[in-house]
This record gives sequence, C-alpha cells and structure tokens, in this order.
Amino acid sequence: MSAPSTTTAPAPSDLAFIRFVSVENMMKLVHSIGVETMLKDLSRYIEDDFKRWEQFDKTPRVASHSEEGVIELMPTSDGEDYGFKYVNGHPKNMREGLQTVTAFGLLARVDTGYPELLTEMTLLTALRTAATSAMVASHLAPKGATTMAMIGNGAQSEFQAMAMWAVNGVSTLRLYDIDSAATDKAVRNLSSQGFKLVACATPEEAIEGAQIITTCTADKQYATILSDNMVGAGVHINAIGGDCPGKTELHKDILARSDVFVEYPPQTRIEGEIQQMPDDFPVTEMWQVITGTTPGRTNDRQITLFDGVGFAIEDFSALRYVRDQLRDIPYFEKLDIIADPDDPRDLFGMLQRAK
Amino acid sequence: MSAPSTTTAPAPSDLAFIRFVSVENMMKLVHSIGVETMLKDLSRYIEDDFKRWEQFDKTPRVASHSEEGVIELMPTSDGEDYGFKYVNGHPKNMREGLQTVTAFGLLARVDTGYPELLTEMTLLTALRTAATSAMVASHLAPKGATTMAMIGNGAQSEFQAMAMWAVNGVSTLRLYDIDSAATDKAVRNLSSQGFKLVACATPEEAIEGAQIITTCTADKQYATILSDNMVGAGVHINAIGGDCPGKTELHKDILARSDVFVEYPPQTRIEGEIQQMPDDFPVTEMWQVITGTTPGRTNDRQITLFDGVGFAIEDFSALRYVRDQLRDIPYFEKLDIIADPDDPRDLFGMLQRAK
Repeated sequence: MSAPSTTTAPAPSDLAFIRFVSVENMMKLVHSIGVETMLKDLSRYIEDDFKRWEQFDKTPRVASHSEEGVIELMPTSDGEDYGFKYVNGHPKNMREGLQTVTAFGLLARVDTGYPELLTEMTLLTALRTAATSAMVASHLAPKGATTMAMIGNGAQSEFQAMAMWAVNGVSTLRLYDIDSAATDKAVRNLSSQGFKLVACATPEEAIEGAQIITTCTADKQYATILSDNMVGAGVHINAIGGDCPGKTELHKDILARSDVFVEYPPQTRIEGEIQQMPDDFPVTEMWQVITGTTPGRTNDRQITLFDGVGFAIEDFSALRYVRDQLRDIPYFEKLDIIADPDDPRDLFGMLQRAK
Repeated sequence: MSAPSTTTAPAPSDLAFIRFVSVENMMKLVHSIGVETMLKDLSRYIEDDFKRWEQFDKTPRVASHSEEGVIELMPTSDGEDYGFKYVNGHPKNMREGLQTVTAFGLLARVDTGYPELLTEMTLLTALRTAATSAMVASHLAPKGATTMAMIGNGAQSEFQAMAMWAVNGVSTLRLYDIDSAATDKAVRNLSSQGFKLVACATPEEAIEGAQIITTCTADKQYATILSDNMVGAGVHINAIGGDCPGKTELHKDILARSDVFVEYPPQTRIEGEIQQMPDDFPVTEMWQVITGTTPGRTNDRQITLFDGVGFAIEDFSALRYVRDQLRDIPYFEKLDIIADPDDPRDLFGMLQRAK
C-alpha cells in the first residue's frame, strides 16, 4: 500500500489525548468549588483512601537528593488507578524568588497503562497537605479545640489555617515566623476569612492557650522550633515541616513524651521527626486510628503528635478528586501526549505518514 | 493591603511555563531532522552518557505490576539535570487496538527542581531503544555485518532496522513474525528505505546467514523464540523483547554459550533474559566496553548477546537531545504547569487574587 504523497496524517483519535489541568484551570476549579468546600471534600477523599489503606501498592517515595534539595517521585496504585506525583523541595529557592515546592501529578488506568489526567500539583499539594492535617486533627486533637498556633508562616500556612477551620472549626490563629514579613503576609491573606488573628513575636507567645500547634518551617537542617519545656499536656502537635532526611523541627524530648502518629512508617522513619529516634521507636499508623483498629487520643493530658511527611496515597486521593470534579466542571485542556496509530503495531507507519 | 475586587491576576511569568512536545510536534521534529540523522545523533548522545556512567544516580526502575501489565517510572540524574520517564507495558493492549507501550518523559533542573521539558516518549522511546541497540552493535557485532534477522515485526521493528542501517550499515533484513500480517506491515514500511527485504516463514529461515539476530517480541511469558541449536558461532544477538519479570525470549542454553552484555545489572537480573540464570551469572556492563575498561568482542567465533531491557540513562540522553534540538527547532508548546507567585511564600495570595 503506497499512499499518495499528498495524503495528510489522520487527526489523532480521542485515545491520543489526556486531560491537562494547568495552574490557571486549577485556580478556576478551586474557586468554582470554593476553597473551604474543596478542603472538606479533599479531607473526606483522603480519609476514604486511608480506610482502604491495605488495598494500595505502597513504597517510600523515590528521592534524588542534591546539595540544594530533593526531587521525588511518589507512586501508588489501588489496582484500578495508578497515580504519581513529581515534587521538588528546595528550601533555598525562596531566596531566589522561586517556589520551595513545585509539583505535578498524573493519574493512569492500571488495565491499559494509559494516562488519563495530568495536573499541576503545586496548589493541589498545598490543599491536600492541609486537608490531611485537618483530617488527622479531627481524630487526634482535643475535642472543641478552637485555637491553633501556626509556627512558620510560609506558602503552606494559610492552607493549614483554612483546612483546620473548614474541617475542625479552629477560629483563633496565633502566628509566628522567624521573618515577621511572612507573618504579615499570612495575616493579610487571612484577614477576610473570619479568624481571630494574633501575630506573635516568639514561638512561646504563639503557643499560649493553643490546643493545636502546627509547625511548618522549611529550612533543611536539624532545627528546634519547639523545645520540650514549651509544650504543655493535652495538645495536638501537627508537625509537617520536617519532610526529608536532615530536616526536623522538634526536640526529640517532645517526641519521647508524645504519642506519635504517622502515615507510612518506612517513609516517615527516613524523613520525619522520628528520624531522630531509634528505629524501633513506637508509632501508630493513622489508617489504623481511622479504621478503629487502634485508639487515637485516649485522654486529655496526652500529647498527640502527627509526624506528617506527605504520602503518595494523599496525592492519589487528590488526583481522584480532581478527576471526579472535571466530570461536571470542565476546567481542562486536551494534551496530545499519547501516540495512537490506527494499527498499534504500526508506529513507524504513523510517523512516515505524518511526513 | 487589600486589592480592589476588580483587579485581575497578573499573567504568569516565564518561570510558570515548561516546554511541551506533543506527539504531533515530535513527528515534526523527527522529520525536520530526518529519521536516520536522528537515530545516529541519539546513538551518539547515548554513547556519550554511557561514557560518563559513573556520574549518574542509578536505580532500577520503580515498577507497579498488575495482572495486565506494568507501569514504570525510570528516574536518573547526572547532578545537573534530572530526568524520568513514565512508561507502561501491556502486551494485551495490542488486541484491543491500543499501544503495548506508551510513554512520556520530563527533564528538570537539579539546582532548582523546576521542570524544564515535558515530552511524549512513545515515539522517542522507540527511537532511543533502536539507537541503543545500534550503538551496542557497533561495539559487539562482527565487523562488516550487513545482514540482520528481525524476529518479531511489531512497533519497534522498523526503528531497529533503520538504526542498524544508519549506524552500522546493515542492508539486508530477514523478517519473521508469528503473525505474517506484522511482517507484511514491516516490509511495506521499509520498502522505500533501500533495504534488501526477505520475509521468512520460520525463525530458522530468518537467521540463515544473519550476522546480527534481533529478537523483539512482546508476549508476557517465558517464550523460546530462539533455541540453542539455531544459533551459530560468531553472531551478535540483540535481545530486546524480554524486559520484565516472567518475560524472556531465549533458551537459557544460548545464554550459557554467549558472552552477555547488559546495561545495569541490578535491573537486568530482574527483567532481562538473565532472570533465567543464577544471580552470579557473569555479565559485562556495556559502559565498561565503551570506555575500554573491559573487552567487548574478542574473536570471530564468539557469540555476543546484548540483553537489553532499556535503562533510564538512555531516556535521559534522549531527553537531553530533544532539549538541545528545541533550541533551533521550536516544535514545542508552552505548558502552564508551575505555580509561580510573585512572592514564593504567597501561594495562597496568588490563589485569592485569581478569584
């Protein structure tokens, strides 16, 4: 068969396209749903996936470390869908006017291996991280907690505040950052959201009267944002800034006094606050609390500590959520990323006919 | 600072965009360079990266296996750039009119973690796989080899033929496939490329007089495409179809008689033909042949066998090549996949202002 030389290549079929959500479309999607609704929804999707934890293919993320930071791939699958996220962490980026964390993610079908959805995940990661913290706090924080100390007022802080408000009713925020300009920014961004906002000059001041303490700082070093004598009985600590080897926020004496809850122990022992502790330091897996297999908070003197590092299943939940939303809210473009010849064995012929 | 509600979000900066090469643009790029030139160029880029093998961060690919196939992530880095490929392998797809293998890849900067280039890699993988085989054959095949047996005439076969011609001067092809329609397709596609083409009815007929034997079949099973008594002294076997656990093409007696050359032993021992052999079965790493550390072919009776499974560094070379080509041949689109607020700590503010 020799096609006449004037024949043009056939237009790609629908199979050749995947849905792509740009940053612009993600922002439209968020506003069309509403930030608070989306945080609540995400928190429910994540909780649902934690409930079926054992169905997932789990692996610690695949990290490529360098002097300046880390690039990671975070894959998981529930046997039906496969998802992964690309994410970097470069604390020094901020000083160069760049994001510390950028991310994108993909959802694919397990039965064919064909990608279905590609999406920006810088915003989506900020939302899912906050939704995870809030979901965890709904299980572990003291009942009726309304005041949160927010230590570290960077890119993640407002999302944390909004999620703790939307999911758990936190209404007072006590903010501290080593750079007061960051606190000013967070106060400005949250001023119209109905919070009581208290800008604090020291971490000690920030945690006064707080039932929830969130630490979310970004330096790649063993830091001690909270020391042992600062933390009183009964609080819930949401420690989410320590998320790679060599980066922690809490003094280890706090860990020793607390009941520590984690996402996926093999990853958290490498990346979380507990990297400071022996390999057999006891931790509880959050999915077991959520399914009722293991108790969470058992008394009001107990310090509960969520050593959150971010796990692939949370990204999977977020990708699932976006895919489900796109059915009704078509904020996506079509991306021609899959070669789809009419005859799957005729890739070379497809290329030739495109000449 | 409260912006008036009529303020629109500022346009994204250049940092917010990465270059995206669609399937359509990849085909334009290939034709603008020329298939043969591109195969030669890729073969040189791959050889250059094999020469600096020790600079790379290497890890076996991260595979998620299911009943139907496998989805894999293949990351690597040379300390300056980071690359990864997403690729699936679903042999049953072909029967459903889908590609067995689809792929896309990404190149990012190690110093900032920012992605730079996203590209289709179904076509690019076909090209780089063929370029790798040809580069390896240039080191191992008998001098002056002009005849290749091509067993398995699927999507990869024409690319193999073109690369062996462009890099090594192979001019006679003896083709065999269990499905003669696949052979007909390959003959049709290659008929205007200047080869002497011989369609064969059996594998035995195909390998008559061939100095290079390429096996590239796709079934996910332990198959015996070649048995020991079929293979004569002095040939180079380019075995590239066995590329996941449970999928091999050669009888193990052939392996025992051959000198086996591999890309990255920890991956090949899991996925390659040598998964049939003991863990200490001796193999030679190709990069050592290329740098001259270890001899390749030492005599004309020797059977050399390239147990090729495809390694992340070859994709990295291909990504580097595409990036370099895009400087002069701008076949790409800009993709708004990175959230880039003016103040990197003000992601939430960026989202609010987009409302």
